[in-house]
Parts: sequence; C-alpha cells; structure tokens
Amino acid sequence: MLSKNKIKYINSLKIKKFRKKEKFFIVEGIKLINEILNSSFSIESLFSINFEKIDVKKIELYKLKKIQEKDLKKITSLKNHQKALAIVKMPEFNINENEIKNNLSLIIDNVQDAGNFGTIIRIADWFGIKNIICSENTVDLYNPKVVQATMGSITRVKIFYENLELFLKKNFFKDFNIYGTFLDGKNIYKEKLDKKGFIIIGNEGKGISKELYKFITKKISIPSFSDKKVESLNVSVATAIICSEFFRK
Amino acid sequence: MLSKNKIKYINSLKIKKFRKKEKFFIVEGIKLINEILNSSFSIESLFSINFEKIDVKKIELYKLKKIQEKDLKKITSLKNHQKALAIVKMPEFNINENEIKNNLSLIIDNVQDAGNFGTIIRIADWFGIKNIICSENTVDLYNPKVVQATMGSITRVKIFYENLELFLKKNFFKDFNIYGTFLDGKNIYKEKLDKKGFIIIGNEGKGISKELYKFITKKISIPSFSDKKVESLNVSVATAIICSEFFRK
Repeated sequence: MLSKNKIKYINSLKIKKFRKKEKFFIVEGIKLINEILNSSFSIESLFSINFEKIDVKKIELYKLKKIQEKDLKKITSLKNHQKALAIVKMPEFNINENEIKNNLSLIIDNVQDAGNFGTIIRIADWFGIKNIICSENTVDLYNPKVVQATMGSITRVKIFYENLELFLKKNFFKDFNIYGTFLDGKNIYKEKLDKKGFIIIGNEGKGISKELYKFITKKISIPSFSDKKVESLNVSVATAIICSEFFRK
Repeated sequence: MLSKNKIKYINSLKIKKFRKKEKFFIVEGIKLINEILNSSFSIESLFSINFEKIDVKKIELYKLKKIQEKDLKKITSLKNHQKALAIVKMPEFNINENEIKNNLSLIIDNVQDAGNFGTIIRIADWFGIKNIICSENTVDLYNPKVVQATMGSITRVKIFYENLELFLKKNFFKDFNIYGTFLDGKNIYKEKLDKKGFIIIGNEGKGISKELYKFITKKISIPSFSDKKVESLNVSVATAIICSEFFRK
C-alpha cells in the first residue's frame, strides 16, 4: 500500500516548481518505462500492479514497488493509468560545444503546447538531431504530457534550457547558419541547406521572438501548394517538413 | 437564455450517433467560425456573448443568438469555451471521379486519434490535396476535437467515408499508383513519386490493414537518420513528410 505521504509526493512531481526542487519526474506506461530502463536514465522507484512485461533485469529489486490498481489511480497523471509509473532522476548533461559546432541542432523559442514539444523531440530523434536548446519560457520538458508525447525519445536527445540571446551570442560560430522560418523566407525546397547550425522553431501563434531576429542568417519558408488561402501548419508538422528537407540530401 | 431542451440538443451533437441522425455538428471559436462563414458550409445557429469579431455580414441576423457566458459553459465541448459556438450543417459532396483520377488523394485507414486526423486534414489542405477517403472505422470527421484540430481546413478538403476495399476495387485506374508506407518500403527520398493516385495512411499502432495490401502498387518508407533505434514517427508527422516529398518537385 502507498502511504499518504508518498501519494502526495508523487503528485507534487506533476508541478514544475516541485520537480525542479526534487530533480525527479514521472514516466508512465510499460513501453516508455522499458525505454527508460534501457537508457542512461536512472529510475528511483517503479510502481506497478505486476512486473510481467517490464525489463526488471535492468533495475535493482528494492526499487520495484508492487501496488494495487486503486493506488495507481491516485498517482497517475493520465486519464487512464498505463499499468506502471516510475519516478525517474532528471539527467544532467553539459553542452558539448564541439558536437553542436559540427551538427544541426534545434532551437525552440517559446513552444507552449506539451504535445507539440514532445512531438518535436520525437522528430529530432528520428533525424538524429542530438541537441535541442530551448528558451526558458518553453514548456517544461518534464511535464508529464511532454514526456508521454516523446515516446521514449526523451532518452536519446539532450535538451537544454537557456537564455537564447546569451546562448546565441556565445555560440555564434563563423560559417554557421542560423535558420528561422518566416512567411517571407526563401522556399525551403529550393535553398541550399547546410547540415551544420541551428534551426529556430518559434511559438505556435507568435512565431520567432523579435529579439532573435538579429542572429538569423537565413530566412526560410515552407511554401503551400494549395490554390486557396491556407492559414498555417502546426509547429510540429512544420518542424518535420523542415528536418526532412535538411536531411534528405 | 438558452432553454433546457436547446442545451440538451447541442450537447447531443457531441455524440456521433446523434450527429449522424441530425446532420449537424458543432464548431467553436471565433477564428474557426469566421472560416465557416466564408466557406460553402451553412450555419444554422451561432451562439456568442458578443458578435464583435464575427463576420456577421455573412449570416442572416435571425441566426445570431446572444447568450450569457454561463450558458456558453453549458454547451461547449472544450475545457475553456472559445467565446462562440456554431451549429453547422454537414455538407454533402459527391465523389468527383475525374478529380480523383487526375490528382493525388489520401486514403485514411482506421486513424483513431482525433488530433491526428484533424492535423492530417490540415496537412492535406496545405498541399492542395482535395479529397480524403476514410475507412468506415476512422474517427468521425465531425467529432468536435477533429473539427478544432483542422483549424478551418475542414471547409476546403472533401472527406468521404467508404468501405475501402469496395472503393479501391471500383477506383483502380490503370497507370495509377497506390502508395502505402511500410518499414520495408523503398526510401521515399530516392523513389520517383507520381502526383496522381492514392497515399494510404494506416492506423497509429497497427499500420495499414492487411485487406488493403493487394491494392498497393508501391511500398514506400521514410528512413530514419538516427544512429540509435528510433521507435516510429507520429502518423500525422509521417503524413507531412510524405506529402512534402510528393509535392516538392
């Protein structure tokens, strides 16, 4: 049985302020937990009704906590619990300047929707993008909805929160492209795209912050093929199309 | 003030069975309602606290129903109401065989998530795809979450529900490609892609139904660029990448 205090503690991890203080976050579902178990991330406790489908060889036995379904319902952050819930230690990475210098990375500027951000991490993973630098006002990586939407990609992509202006000032390498998407940018299907640099992904409604304009070396855009006026693409869909175009060559 | 019966009627339209019978569906939010007002769709009633930002020149005055916020809360299908709610007549289209013969269309096979389906419709709209044929077990187009996720694209793309086996048997045109995505398909970035035919988009977990395999003339796949094992792409993200690749040329 779970103590009241434990239930309270786990539920507190749904709130950013407490997560930041405790340095732990919640992962739910057998598939996702198995991804965590096979990654460099470290699980502190793993709660489940049974451990049949869980890769238990990868975890110390004392960390497995068998609980009843009624207790799982008290701690899940999902509408329907996913049979298992783990408390996971937030990993700590340092920015590898060399890796950034020689590869394409994403810069996320104030993306607010958890599903969008999780999907963007999954897209980055698919295309082998190793680093994502986020503005401090971007939705929190450890928000349970973001974690679920990454479908495990959270274990393979390194994500940093930075003051983007300071970060870009510091990391403005020579011969380094900083791409930003704008309505009046150059047609992405016709531009030479360099697999070194940053692609800035802006906020869902407002796009890229004005303060970052000065860093952008190339304005790009995804042309619409419709003969009617089409509003826009969802930010994660736009990210997918842009990444596909960068890597296809 | 809204009568109890009216509230009951509007809420019944959140359920597929009643929508099918009544042939009306719900649209919420000023932006989306303005898109409807500027389309061929017909609004039966428009409920709002005030009509300031609504394109009221496009609607007969007797259809405008000013209501109080507390009533809007009783009829919204969203967590937070979006200031306006419209009851809209379902449009009726016939399949234009010629249009299908000469263009690229999507076939949606059992996509279940409302957000995914809405996003796919938005992607189709962006790329100028005019027709989407869905299996009968695909999530309902008029599900409020689908309608919201289309961001207005629902007014510009024609969507049909069909028995896909029968439909494909009937519409198996000569020199017509039917593309399906498979793990062992040919690299989409290297294949010649014809802008005439169907692209079949499968279910989120199960992919394309076995019964449709026999119709597929070209198996394609999106290669991953990661050096690690990456599970998969979200179905709407995959659709975006595929459409981008078809239309970029």
